[in-house]
Amino acid sequence: MDKRKSTGEVTEPLTLTLDAEGGDNAPGEIVAGALLAASPNLRLLLVGRPSVIEPHLRGKDTANIEIVPSASVVSLHQEPASAVRNMEDSSIVIGARTVADGRSQGFVSAGSTGAMLAASVLIMKRVDGIRRPAILTTIPGLHGPLVFLDAGANADCRPEHLLEFGVLGAAYCRAVLGCVEPRVGLLNIGEEEGKGNELALGAYGLLQKSGLKFVGNVEGRDLLANKADVVVTDGFTGNVALKLLEGCAASIFSRLKAVANSGPAAKAGGLLMRSALRNMRSQLDPETYGGAYLLGVRGLSIICHGNSSRVAIAHALKLGANALAKGVLQSVDREVATILGNQNAH
Amino acid sequence: MDKRKSTGEVTEPLTLTLDAEGGDNAPGEIVAGALLAASPNLRLLLVGRPSVIEPHLRGKDTANIEIVPSASVVSLHQEPASAVRNMEDSSIVIGARTVADGRSQGFVSAGSTGAMLAASVLIMKRVDGIRRPAILTTIPGLHGPLVFLDAGANADCRPEHLLEFGVLGAAYCRAVLGCVEPRVGLLNIGEEEGKGNELALGAYGLLQKSGLKFVGNVEGRDLLANKADVVVTDGFTGNVALKLLEGCAASIFSRLKAVANSGPAAKAGGLLMRSALRNMRSQLDPETYGGAYLLGVRGLSIICHGNSSRVAIAHALKLGANALAKGVLQSVDREVATILGNQNAH
Repeated sequence: MDKRKSTGEVTEPLTLTLDAEGGDNAPGEIVAGALLAASPNLRLLLVGRPSVIEPHLRGKDTANIEIVPSASVVSLHQEPASAVRNMEDSSIVIGARTVADGRSQGFVSAGSTGAMLAASVLIMKRVDGIRRPAILTTIPGLHGPLVFLDAGANADCRPEHLLEFGVLGAAYCRAVLGCVEPRVGLLNIGEEEGKGNELALGAYGLLQKSGLKFVGNVEGRDLLANKADVVVTDGFTGNVALKLLEGCAASIFSRLKAVANSGPAAKAGGLLMRSALRNMRSQLDPETYGGAYLLGVRGLSIICHGNSSRVAIAHALKLGANALAKGVLQSVDREVATILGNQNAH
Repeated sequence: MDKRKSTGEVTEPLTLTLDAEGGDNAPGEIVAGALLAASPNLRLLLVGRPSVIEPHLRGKDTANIEIVPSASVVSLHQEPASAVRNMEDSSIVIGARTVADGRSQGFVSAGSTGAMLAASVLIMKRVDGIRRPAILTTIPGLHGPLVFLDAGANADCRPEHLLEFGVLGAAYCRAVLGCVEPRVGLLNIGEEEGKGNELALGAYGLLQKSGLKFVGNVEGRDLLANKADVVVTDGFTGNVALKLLEGCAASIFSRLKAVANSGPAAKAGGLLMRSALRNMRSQLDPETYGGAYLLGVRGLSIICHGNSSRVAIAHALKLGANALAKGVLQSVDREVATILGNQNAH
């Protein structure tokens, strides 16, 4: 608690690593994001080819930015695990190594999600007791944010992996959202015990006797209703669900636009509502939440949208620093030790 | 084609069976729905305890309604398969039997979905060549309706089941939506081939060489974008996705309401947009589409929401009759024979 003010602001210097060469808008927007976020309290290691990065830094205040040279870039078309194994000089491998070496507390990239997963697991390494690190996202529920995982790291899961996701989600919820006793729910196709596929049935049993505050099944229609603080599912269902939320919101906004153009009264109405709608849209925008976290590895691994702008990158850096300052990694270790009973948790 | 006018109206008499005792609002609203829908072109068999049904028919025009007596009701709390096996005199068993006996072309119930699935498979029997009948729903895409299945009949699937869902969906799409060559897509977590869990990877291969017009993977964010006319997935993911769409729409409407109350300008805007919004909401309302169909059994099995009103029941009856008049069952037989190469298809 002594590391932050009561507002949750970071007060002790942290270091994050940023992949300057990852993403559709690299390196320009990524470097610009770094310039927006760097401060005496948030030092950045910027990984990339110096010849590519330096022009974007010229004439700027780089007091809190250090370039870490890399020589290549893993592309979206390469098989992630073999690229990470073979491209020792790539920005994603060198970036992950800065965390493994203790030079930095976390790694942010808008590059290939697959390569980011592979680099995090292979180089930063898993937390003892966690077999399946998971992608955690924060969803804007009707009554506040809720934690959702796995958003796509593990397409095929076994029940014990969903228990691990519950542990990771609860740890995040405690540390970052300040939730004292996070309610953990299981995404399922019915409310009652005994519903679901084999995976869900198995996970239900494990969660129930886990020591987590398990509140049972959460149906799709209730996901946004904050019936749980943490909702777990396999990475296939989770990824489909998350992208469906995006698609549904986009589709309704596009219908709203059509409605607003459907007649003079509606048009006037639409104009009057415009700023309020814009505000609502930004609340629902996943970018507002600053990227997804791969939790369960040793360090914070932050995966940004491929099309991230400088603002999105700066936002991801600041939120990541905030999560670290609030002790998210220590919280994971504690929760793993408590629930999974692993004595090796460091 | 000679069975309908160019408008798609039913012109040859059909018979449907209706479970008067199924649903939260049974029997009053169910019987009232029957009275709204029955006509010389749509005769109804109303299954239930005569003492319970008759008071609701008193003084009404029952020329096209025949009561088929039953003596018991399967409740929501009973294990569906054993209830169907043991309760020979229940409305759901007797109703399904009217279809199996050829007295009726389809069976409509707002009762237990599980019991409806069990009765349909055990009594009406599966179509030859289909191992897993699936729940088909129509989703309001941005550019028109699209067919989505399995919405929850089969929580655990193998790849060959998803191929069957493609066949059933394409058959429906051809007959009912008049789509000449339905594009079939696979709900998945990436656009490229090679993405997904083991089930999706297996299904991709089967769909690709099936003879269906397979257009590849459809991500959650594109589900409403009509990239395919038919989207298939397992019943777990499908059920989660469908309920999430409902929840997402409800959540956005509730936010819109808050926006409309957020200030005088927005309030005026909301009032001006109100009727247009109401119209949009009804387009997105699953009830408008008249229940879900269990396809792949011998007869049309129509599963209505438990809280169906008389209007929803009447709507389901008319849409079901329309689908039958358009030859949905024959279309399934043809598509099964063509794609699955089953010579026994009747």
